[in-house]
Amino acid sequence: MAVQDPSLTDPFWKGFQKGSWQNEINVRDFIIRNYTSYDGNESFLEKATEATATLNNKLLALKMKEREQGGVIGADTKTVSTITSHKPGYLDKNLEKIVGLQTDRPLKKALMPFGGIRMAKDALSSYGLEINPDVDHIFTDYRKTHNQGVFDVYDKNMRKCRHNKIITGLPDAYGRGRLIADFPRIALYGIDRLMQQKANDFDNSGDGEMTNDTIQLREEITEQYRALNAIKKMAESYGFDLSRPAANAREALQWIYFGYLAAIKQQNGAAMSIGRIDAFIDIYIERDLQLGVLNEQQAQELVDHFTMKLRMVTFIRTPEYNALFSGNPIWATLSLAGIAMDGRHMVTKSSYRFLNTLANMGPAPEPNITLLWSERLPKHFKNYAARVSIESSTVQYENDELMRNQWGTDYYAIACCVSAQPIADGMQFFGARANLAKAVLYTINGGVDEITKQQVGPAYEPISGDTITYDEFTKKFDPIIDWLADTYVNSLNVIHYMHDKYYYESAQMALKNTQLNRTFATGISGLSVAVDSISAIKYAAVHIIRDEDGVAVDYKVDGDYPKYGNNDDRADQIAVDLVKKFYTKMNRHHLYRGAKLSTSVLTITSNVVYGNNTGSTPNGRRKGQPFAPGANPYYGSETHGALASLLSVAKLPYKYATDGISNTFAVTPSTLGKDLQSRSNTLVNMIDGYIKKDGHHLNINVLSRDTLIDAQKHPEQYPTLTIRVSGYCVYFADLTKEQQDDVISRTFHKNL
Amino acid sequence: MAVQDPSLTDPFWKGFQKGSWQNEINVRDFIIRNYTSYDGNESFLEKATEATATLNNKLLALKMKEREQGGVIGADTKTVSTITSHKPGYLDKNLEKIVGLQTDRPLKKALMPFGGIRMAKDALSSYGLEINPDVDHIFTDYRKTHNQGVFDVYDKNMRKCRHNKIITGLPDAYGRGRLIADFPRIALYGIDRLMQQKANDFDNSGDGEMTNDTIQLREEITEQYRALNAIKKMAESYGFDLSRPAANAREALQWIYFGYLAAIKQQNGAAMSIGRIDAFIDIYIERDLQLGVLNEQQAQELVDHFTMKLRMVTFIRTPEYNALFSGNPIWATLSLAGIAMDGRHMVTKSSYRFLNTLANMGPAPEPNITLLWSERLPKHFKNYAARVSIESSTVQYENDELMRNQWGTDYYAIACCVSAQPIADGMQFFGARANLAKAVLYTINGGVDEITKQQVGPAYEPISGDTITYDEFTKKFDPIIDWLADTYVNSLNVIHYMHDKYYYESAQMALKNTQLNRTFATGISGLSVAVDSISAIKYAAVHIIRDEDGVAVDYKVDGDYPKYGNNDDRADQIAVDLVKKFYTKMNRHHLYRGAKLSTSVLTITSNVVYGNNTGSTPNGRRKGQPFAPGANPYYGSETHGALASLLSVAKLPYKYATDGISNTFAVTPSTLGKDLQSRSNTLVNMIDGYIKKDGHHLNINVLSRDTLIDAQKHPEQYPTLTIRVSGYCVYFADLTKEQQDDVISRTFHKNL
Repeated sequence: MAVQDPSLTDPFWKGFQKGSWQNEINVRDFIIRNYTSYDGNESFLEKATEATATLNNKLLALKMKEREQGGVIGADTKTVSTITSHKPGYLDKNLEKIVGLQTDRPLKKALMPFGGIRMAKDALSSYGLEINPDVDHIFTDYRKTHNQGVFDVYDKNMRKCRHNKIITGLPDAYGRGRLIADFPRIALYGIDRLMQQKANDFDNSGDGEMTNDTIQLREEITEQYRALNAIKKMAESYGFDLSRPAANAREALQWIYFGYLAAIKQQNGAAMSIGRIDAFIDIYIERDLQLGVLNEQQAQELVDHFTMKLRMVTFIRTPEYNALFSGNPIWATLSLAGIAMDGRHMVTKSSYRFLNTLANMGPAPEPNITLLWSERLPKHFKNYAARVSIESSTVQYENDELMRNQWGTDYYAIACCVSAQPIADGMQFFGARANLAKAVLYTINGGVDEITKQQVGPAYEPISGDTITYDEFTKKFDPIIDWLADTYVNSLNVIHYMHDKYYYESAQMALKNTQLNRTFATGISGLSVAVDSISAIKYAAVHIIRDEDGVAVDYKVDGDYPKYGNNDDRADQIAVDLVKKFYTKMNRHHLYRGAKLSTSVLTITSNVVYGNNTGSTPNGRRKGQPFAPGANPYYGSETHGALASLLSVAKLPYKYATDGISNTFAVTPSTLGKDLQSRSNTLVNMIDGYIKKDGHHLNINVLSRDTLIDAQKHPEQYPTLTIRVSGYCVYFADLTKEQQDDVISRTFHKNL
Repeated sequence: MAVQDPSLTDPFWKGFQKGSWQNEINVRDFIIRNYTSYDGNESFLEKATEATATLNNKLLALKMKEREQGGVIGADTKTVSTITSHKPGYLDKNLEKIVGLQTDRPLKKALMPFGGIRMAKDALSSYGLEINPDVDHIFTDYRKTHNQGVFDVYDKNMRKCRHNKIITGLPDAYGRGRLIADFPRIALYGIDRLMQQKANDFDNSGDGEMTNDTIQLREEITEQYRALNAIKKMAESYGFDLSRPAANAREALQWIYFGYLAAIKQQNGAAMSIGRIDAFIDIYIERDLQLGVLNEQQAQELVDHFTMKLRMVTFIRTPEYNALFSGNPIWATLSLAGIAMDGRHMVTKSSYRFLNTLANMGPAPEPNITLLWSERLPKHFKNYAARVSIESSTVQYENDELMRNQWGTDYYAIACCVSAQPIADGMQFFGARANLAKAVLYTINGGVDEITKQQVGPAYEPISGDTITYDEFTKKFDPIIDWLADTYVNSLNVIHYMHDKYYYESAQMALKNTQLNRTFATGISGLSVAVDSISAIKYAAVHIIRDEDGVAVDYKVDGDYPKYGNNDDRADQIAVDLVKKFYTKMNRHHLYRGAKLSTSVLTITSNVVYGNNTGSTPNGRRKGQPFAPGANPYYGSETHGALASLLSVAKLPYKYATDGISNTFAVTPSTLGKDLQSRSNTLVNMIDGYIKKDGHHLNINVLSRDTLIDAQKHPEQYPTLTIRVSGYCVYFADLTKEQQDDVISRTFHKNL
């Protein structure tokens, strides 16, 4: 008897093209064999249904109420959030096509103490709420948290670096996030098949010799298995049977969302990204359309409702956290488009549908829409995307060619802002960033912090003369970078050991392959400030102004010097060398679980806070002033126009910064052209050009400084004005005054 | 200005001889420089004070009530036991010279779920009690237990081995115990000095490179520091200030006891030993006696009250646990005497005082009194000890010469039964034992268990003939031992990883040096059964009797063969080789934390349960019959008298079994001599002889079978009849009928 083709017999897989995905967990293979690329334009798109409009209005009203009430309209103080901790909750049970809430009420914040009980308490108390004393007791006396674990191990050096903000934003009190689970595998296979696979992996993990690594992995697989079971139970409470594959497009989106929901019920990670689901979900929609069980309006409604769920995700945070990342972003980053390994573009009608949610429900920070860009994307889609950017400033662009080649797969997506990650078998240990601008100052001051006056770095001999010679500087900069790299990497070793120990992401890991490629994601902040400072030292005469304690606190620069951001190799090469140097120094070290080192040049909105805590720098930046975000040239240093600026940033080597190089770009509409068509043409050409030059990432804001100044004065008139900051979108109104000022003071390119 | 001698200025150290102990934590140096050895006899000893008698009667009454009520007269179902969880409790506050209870009432069992919540629940429910549902929830959903961690990792092979009882008694659901903290350091230095040392160790742990090992150690030191603080708080609740050293003998004993109390509040380890404190405490008593602030009666009272506290320690256990270790032993093992590295014996008046507690308060299983024996001990003390043995059968003897040389220090003590451990810097990972008798049967049956008929071991070819040839057997035995050693060691790797992760002994570790020498303590059970079976195969003709499934279930032996226990090298060498072989096979493996392998030949009372689960063996033992305990020859096989038996056991090489070789010896009083004096002389000569032949351990019971038979019939007449089983003491009345039968059926030597 011939073996029957399971795709013909399995009712859930009926109509799909067969492939190895049937016999192994391989969503990528399924997508590549089944997706239908779309070269047409957006004319097929449908407007929001009445249900969508009603739900969206409800949600907007809640969001506005939340903003009015200072950020919280409800928070759990007692029920500790787990995958199964809450009863079902709805925005409107009768209208929602995709269901599931983090807690039992929309926008009600969950109680998540596993990352840190103090953080959970502080977050609540900053909103006038008090944690249940039993929970406090449990997570203080019985159940250690990630945060406690980390601080039980940090050494004095690490604490000092953290306190003095030369190492910043470390995920030592909250979830590290930045994991992209392969959520579609729930829809394609159902939970039972995934559990079976994990049981099989368990049996094949380790050769019997129980080393610590093997024990750790085996325990993790068991936790994953347990999480899968919990996801099933949670879905069951909503009336869905996730043991089996999804039967249609609605179920597919619902199954994916339940996976994501489990992740955000378990983890309050800094970035809880959704991944890359446009081609996958398009296959299900296409099948339903062909079967006549779905029409375009209904398809769009599903995508709208799914997207609305991502707009509702929220975590309660402390004021300190909010100061770093304004607008309470959660980076439900959604990656769209890209090119397949076989050369076909991966734009589907669903790529359009997700962009269309911005029109149907208005602009919003989440999901953080990311276009995986290539010159090879179809013309219509490129133009449509550019128009969305021009109209809403809510899209970011990342170099698909660079990333696909670097990571060796077309089944990758962006975590957070600029961190590419293979979805099936990649993960990263997120590690925030080191402040290289401050490292320049520590070099001059022999490890003494210019703000706190503490001896933070090793007490090397400071630069004693009045003028900094380049030779002396470089000789002294090297050991400071050594020390910073040492301290930084080892702090992260502690953090990730403890995160695995006390706050393991079993739900997300359950939806990935068991054998993972891990990256150790470090980061750089203050790049342009450091580079211009070094350039000033090298090419001009930098005189030191010392305070009464003999600490260098200000600088006077005689002469001109090349600045990063003008396509001048003299300055740009300093940036390239600095990224390489820091990477190389960090790479000397033991990295937890044999992870591969990666680095980002990304600050998100924390460039403001980092700047606050950094003294005056030789590039003329005053003490306390913000840095430029990410890899951006320093404000006012770019004097040669938009293209020169882009060319400078594009020189930074992705190979040494595979965690991403963020460039936040603002251009006035009129600079791009007279009408929407010419503006979008210009924008597409600009992005294509940047990508071709190996530029990695571009946040595009098309707006004028005047608009922002007006929005700052009259926030009520701009409730949903959305802008892109370094790596994510935010409602302008949700930024602090200081951050708004920073955004306003950034370069708005008025000539190309 | 000359530096003042701190021993002269510190009021707590006044009168002590100075030494390096002043500048570093070094209790051993303090003892060696300050103790006064005693060569006299016991005539100085005092009887129990009235307070002691009153307290002891109260305690005995409670104990009898506990026995009547089936083992529990009170148990916490809600308050999770931690160092500071309970308010002070007393037996009689006005009379007790040494205070402190595990809970708030005498003999009330503490709730200890960290080792395993199921175990805690089962233990309670076996006494008709129910755990508080919140505690159940916390330790199921938020706080993983040691037990859960282990079972999350075990592979199928391990589970099968455990289920089929070829690997038994693993500490995977309770505390591993077997740690001896250096409790005297609290008395000598006070907690603050110890905390300061730990803070210093923390700063000097790791070179900045945060490897997993370094992170683990640093977190542990932090937990130790926290535990020290908790001990101080707990003592404070009893009205004592442990931040400072003890000022006198009473405080010294009280400080030591608080340390021990912290240990047993935190851990329900299989053996919670107290260590070796006779010389230490004697220094304080001597000082007080000389100062005239204490007289002998008061000194004895302190020792009595301290000892009474050790008699009160109790844990609630499951019926399965009790089946293994009857009488609810906790192995508060107290080591006495021994010889110092410098050749002086370490018998002090306090060594006598501790033995005198048996007279003052009657015999009792706890503390488990262990004499560190050497021929060089003073004559009077040896005779006194032998008389105590003859009168109470409550003492065990261990070879101090062998152990001092092996472990390289005179500051070691016995943990549990026979496990020597350097007190300041040694620790062990306790690992129960493997059933070598069953391994013989698996060799014959190709890995199939003779009782369950499951394929447990690898499916090697069974022995197929009717008669077992020695050649075939040895060829097939080797890979079975390989497999058993692999599985056993790796199960232990899992257990100890998880114990450190979920049930770390921070209180005990806080009272040890930070840098430890770790041993990986494995064990052998069924040695004599295996040895005699192999001897039968080698020297006689063993015919296989198979059941309907073809499984060998019985044996018929034609011809005679040498048996272990008769000083016949042909059999004894098989025993020596088997111990070496198993050690060598285990030693091929990765051992958790780089621990050094050690092995014991010890079964405690579990020889009965192990026998229950093992089929008939070629040595003529019937299915289900008990093994001989520890390293004992098999019952009835010793036909050449007591000395021949001792000589056989003494051949087992301690170097390959540094975790101890247990020999439980029963002799009738009349065999030893006509009167007490001649009996004690004989006993001393016998022990000296055994020790000189490098015998390691001897449990001595001086009683007749008739006494035990009578006690079994009339338990009410023998409420405190105490006997030594393998490695500990037990009230005969607390043994199960089956265990009593086993003890009765053991060899009672009637000729030397």
